[in-house]
Amino acid sequence: MPTASERLKQSGIVLPAVTSPVGAYVPAVRHGSLLLLSGQIPLRDGKVAYTGKVGGPRTLEDAIAAARLCAINALAIAADTAGGIDRVARVLKLVVYVASAAGFTEQHKAANGASQLMVEVFGDAGRHARAAVGVAELPLDATVEVDVTFELA
Amino acid sequence: MPTASERLKQSGIVLPAVTSPVGAYVPAVRHGSLLLLSGQIPLRDGKVAYTGKVGGPRTLEDAIAAARLCAINALAIAADTAGGIDRVARVLKLVVYVASAAGFTEQHKAANGASQLMVEVFGDAGRHARAAVGVAELPLDATVEVDVTFELA
Amino acid sequence: MPTASERLKQSGIVLPAVTSPVGAYVPAVRHGSLLLLSGQIPLRDGKVAYTGKVGGPRTLEDAIAAARLCAINALAIAADTAGGIDRVARVLKLVVYVASAAGFTEQHKAANGASQLMVEVFGDAGRHARAAVGVAELPLDATVEVDVTFELA
Repeated sequence: MPTASERLKQSGIVLPAVTSPVGAYVPAVRHGSLLLLSGQIPLRDGKVAYTGKVGGPRTLEDAIAAARLCAINALAIAADTAGGIDRVARVLKLVVYVASAAGFTEQHKAANGASQLMVEVFGDAGRHARAAVGVAELPLDATVEVDVTFELA
Repeated sequence: MPTASERLKQSGIVLPAVTSPVGAYVPAVRHGSLLLLSGQIPLRDGKVAYTGKVGGPRTLEDAIAAARLCAINALAIAADTAGGIDRVARVLKLVVYVASAAGFTEQHKAANGASQLMVEVFGDAGRHARAAVGVAELPLDATVEVDVTFELA
Repeated sequence: MPTASERLKQSGIVLPAVTSPVGAYVPAVRHGSLLLLSGQIPLRDGKVAYTGKVGGPRTLEDAIAAARLCAINALAIAADTAGGIDRVARVLKLVVYVASAAGFTEQHKAANGASQLMVEVFGDAGRHARAAVGVAELPLDATVEVDVTFELA
């Protein structure tokens, strides 16, 4: 069984550097073996790579890519907090918020962009419980926000 | 004190069969005695029984019934995962997402459909912490989605 | 290091009396050292002090004040449940729901009203993981709802 770090390499995914949010909150908090993350938006090189609502300016394909990018950012934080991605034992839960124009009701398909990344990196240990909902607006006009709970080894 | 399975029988509630979601996520994940569920929509016999927004095409009464059905689906998953509903020790938390037309602000009343079902089935052990919010859209145009965290015995 | 109760006094914050919600849910549930709270709206003296959407009738400054009030109400519940605010070891997670008019995308700034209160009261132990999202509607037309998870000592 390949490790998560080996799978990342195989997939050609490079985890970005983590920059701590400026403010009263932090990227992640550990409680026992639970690692609770802050909600991740699709930031790339310090900019929001996907803005606008799905079913409006954004397509479902964009939303899937945005959710995948959010999940990669979550992995970067987990690796940074836990001392390497291989310290993550399992993905427990995702809550996927999708900025949705009226009438867009495929939030579950958008969320698959994050879910499938988790399985790509962790195999069966990446299979998680999930909620996907369509929200009115997201910070910085992000298309998707993903809230992840990991279990650490 | 009647057990949860006895109360279900008394209430005439038959838990539906659980069908695993096709995809990278699973109906529930266990972490210690925590059982984290995927968000439940008001599916009945494989179809969404309540669609559309409350305060729009749907009434508050519909939303209460939808929330109750979501909660029953959550019980089915808990029973299937834990080896019977009597393995559930307690309901810890519900997050109830209500698809809301502009101006509908009684999400707490809609959420009671799920909350009261939990107390009907588990008695005092069914009393839980809860958040209820009004969202723009839900997967498959569901009227309500309920995210449940149980404690297992 | 001042205690949380000393910091509250220094800040002139008086925690309100807790009134249990009438219904099937409760203000907070304890699971091990986790304290899971029900979502808090900006109630003051039994009335919602901030109603309406941000970016519509409400300004960002109103939303920040509303989030702070939600957080104070969360502290009151934690103190009431745990036997005093000094029994709270840490703030683990906030989910901040901001009722948002179309085009308002500064939910993270609104959420800072709650986040900064936590650090004001708990110091470094108040630094938490956080998600902030913009929702369509909230119960009783509240401007903000805050869902808090504490760790007890």
